[in-house]
Amino acid sequence: MAEQSTFAPRSSTEAVEEGLAFAPKFDADGLVTCVASDAASGEVLMVAHMNAEALARTIASGEAWYFSRSRRALWRKGETSGHVQRVVEMRVDCDQDAIWIRVAQAGGAACHTGRRSCFYRGVPLSAGDGPVTLEWRDADQVFDPQAVYGGGGGKPG
Amino acid sequence: MAEQSTFAPRSSTEAVEEGLAFAPKFDADGLVTCVASDAASGEVLMVAHMNAEALARTIASGEAWYFSRSRRALWRKGETSGHVQRVVEMRVDCDQDAIWIRVAQAGGAACHTGRRSCFYRGVPLSAGDGPVTLEWRDADQVFDPQAVYGGGGGKPG
Repeated sequence: MAEQSTFAPRSSTEAVEEGLAFAPKFDADGLVTCVASDAASGEVLMVAHMNAEALARTIASGEAWYFSRSRRALWRKGETSGHVQRVVEMRVDCDQDAIWIRVAQAGGAACHTGRRSCFYRGVPLSAGDGPVTLEWRDADQVFDPQAVYGGGGGKPG
Repeated sequence: MAEQSTFAPRSSTEAVEEGLAFAPKFDADGLVTCVASDAASGEVLMVAHMNAEALARTIASGEAWYFSRSRRALWRKGETSGHVQRVVEMRVDCDQDAIWIRVAQAGGAACHTGRRSCFYRGVPLSAGDGPVTLEWRDADQVFDPQAVYGGGGGKPG
């Protein structure tokens, strides 16, 4: 498997934070968190997870692969919808347990609900108690999920 | 506790994805993932976690609170460094297990290592096998972590 030679072992905090060896910290489930943002607009499109194989395939192919926690399966983004993500840039954070990819989003929509971004609702800030009512933000659907996924839709993340 | 009245119970997928009730999905550890980006530049600054109390405090105060997994403690961002994050906008994703906040970052640096963003290293994409060597990206230190944190530094996330 490619990932066995792709990643370095975790060593000291100093090496992980200030070194140039790529030593991602996979959690107890073998996953790192990945944030995908639109390379042009900077908008955050989605948050998902990668296991070692998904991360290695993303690096090797330049297209985003994730691991679906709900389906317990490797997931090539856009496999069903065609809405693949070409990775323009990948970065890793200080302690190497999170990945940030800047992507060119095919089809203009990252979310399985048909929206450009999964973050199509705002949470109003308030000093008061009581239930929070969300607000729509850029929530227009770019595609019809029923037409794209049929009855087999649903968020794979 | 404020969070008891702030959040709605989880109901159907339809309600969670297409409704306006705020029903965050906390994981087995009681956490949601939170991405903080710079409200002006769009740059992703950090990925951290919030428990229900941190999320409720962030909503109520308009400043970012997180939950430190390593310290097992509520963590007001900037409490030690002064580098607080004023929340300009908060959003939630389709299945409500991830939060995105756009912030005004005090001190111009979000990372405990002194950098503006925690994502100060790039991961080069490659079709070849073999170890990956990271590349510095905007890695200049905005502050000296030793001076700010003394010996007590380290990533609280």
